[in-house]
Amino acid sequence: MDFTVGSATAAVAGSFDATPDPRLREVMQMLTQHLHDFVREAAPTIGEWNTAIEFLTEVGRSCSDTRQEFILLSDVLGVSMLVETINGQEGGTESTVLGPFHMTESPRRELGDSVDLIGGTRVCVVSGTVRSTSGEPLAGASVDVWQCTEDGFYDVQQPERQPAGNGRGLFRTDPEGRFWFRTVVPSHYPIPTDGPVGRLLAATDRHPYRPAHVHFIASAQGHEEVTTHAFVAGSAYIDSDAVFAVKKNLMVEFVETTDPDIAAEYGVEAPFVHAEFDIVLQERS
Amino acid sequence: MDFTVGSATAAVAGSFDATPDPRLREVMQMLTQHLHDFVREAAPTIGEWNTAIEFLTEVGRSCSDTRQEFILLSDVLGVSMLVETINGQEGGTESTVLGPFHMTESPRRELGDSVDLIGGTRVCVVSGTVRSTSGEPLAGASVDVWQCTEDGFYDVQQPERQPAGNGRGLFRTDPEGRFWFRTVVPSHYPIPTDGPVGRLLAATDRHPYRPAHVHFIASAQGHEEVTTHAFVAGSAYIDSDAVFAVKKNLMVEFVETTDPDIAAEYGVEAPFVHAEFDIVLQERS
Repeated sequence: MDFTVGSATAAVAGSFDATPDPRLREVMQMLTQHLHDFVREAAPTIGEWNTAIEFLTEVGRSCSDTRQEFILLSDVLGVSMLVETINGQEGGTESTVLGPFHMTESPRRELGDSVDLIGGTRVCVVSGTVRSTSGEPLAGASVDVWQCTEDGFYDVQQPERQPAGNGRGLFRTDPEGRFWFRTVVPSHYPIPTDGPVGRLLAATDRHPYRPAHVHFIASAQGHEEVTTHAFVAGSAYIDSDAVFAVKKNLMVEFVETTDPDIAAEYGVEAPFVHAEFDIVLQERS
Repeated sequence: MDFTVGSATAAVAGSFDATPDPRLREVMQMLTQHLHDFVREAAPTIGEWNTAIEFLTEVGRSCSDTRQEFILLSDVLGVSMLVETINGQEGGTESTVLGPFHMTESPRRELGDSVDLIGGTRVCVVSGTVRSTSGEPLAGASVDVWQCTEDGFYDVQQPERQPAGNGRGLFRTDPEGRFWFRTVVPSHYPIPTDGPVGRLLAATDRHPYRPAHVHFIASAQGHEEVTTHAFVAGSAYIDSDAVFAVKKNLMVEFVETTDPDIAAEYGVEAPFVHAEFDIVLQERS
């Protein structure tokens, strides 16, 4: 039978019938259906198809050890956030996108250490407790943290200005499930605009900004891992994140604190900025 | 409002509302809908999403001046053929995929020239007439031709063994709308299997072969251009082309011809292989 607009999907889906892995077979057949539905509805000209091929090729070729343009594309199309939401924990801290900058291993640090290796202008302490959904504090939980500078850049974006690992730390909670570290208040920032995804945003009149946030991946034995952010409440662009990652429950007040006793607890001098972000992990069933 | 599995598509589609170009806006909003529908149905784990990101990245990074892995991916998913079919001419010669090897300009050649620059074992003549749908022969029509060798390789795949332009030619029809050139009978061949698309085919137990064919792009003033193939009737894999491009009307008999008078007409010696492939172009409305 000839390949027609009507018979195309059955022909291509059928070509995957012999796939040994049933999950791969299922996903390829679903992809075929939805991809063909899109092509039939959009009915691209050959020139438009060419433009799409060139765009995707450039997205791939923009990727390097320090840049992941396909994750960025997934982010701005809301796919990353949709996948995170589908895989979110029930009852635990809500998840949000991984983002494209978790590409180097965070250096292991002690509680109270600073992740700010370049000396920012405002000292900030981020602290919190990791708990199970049952309320029990989780000692020895892993808390992986990464964030941008006060100017809005990650270490991998400024290798000549920031030492590797600036803004990053891998911590373990204490016996009470607590973690705390020194840092700076991160800035809102644009996602990289000098590649094909940036040009897509410009062509569609979308701004490239993300509201200020600190990234977290928290995990503990017997619990589901969570990938999330603490968003700086009141940050610019908090209502129009370019990657759709903001959730109300993830907004955290970064509070100017003048109490010298609290400052002393964290080994800093008042005044400093304090943010408390508790994390709840779902017990693994 | 928080981003949820239910609200995601409206949020992302809405972010494209201000796109100045209405066609780009429409396509991005259709893409958002179908892409999200796919993600919701497939419900990938984070690990599966990562695998997809890595796959697409590798497809992009496999592209070079002489290789277009994204066209290959579009081909094996039937997208290229679907786009060709949607854009096909009514009443003219049916179209089929461009394929990934039309990446260099075909050298201009005179009618009767050989596109076989390396001396194949079986001389073949391909000839035909380009006509309008009204039946009128089209003089001065452009006929762009490319094909693989008797061993199944295009020039760009074997830069050390084939001169650039081997298997390629750009011809103009004579006053009677006729074209003819010397070549070899192309072989069936595998699409490139050493990249990510090849690994996808292997993982899904699909063979990578295309039946033997000669590529054509024909165009003439006042007529729609057609991108098509002449398939060698009876070729291996004619019923299971890896890129779904075969149409019954595009199958051509490559006939062993012993008549010395016909051979002389084309300036070759008998016996030779002769294929006649007429092309009909739709008048532009």
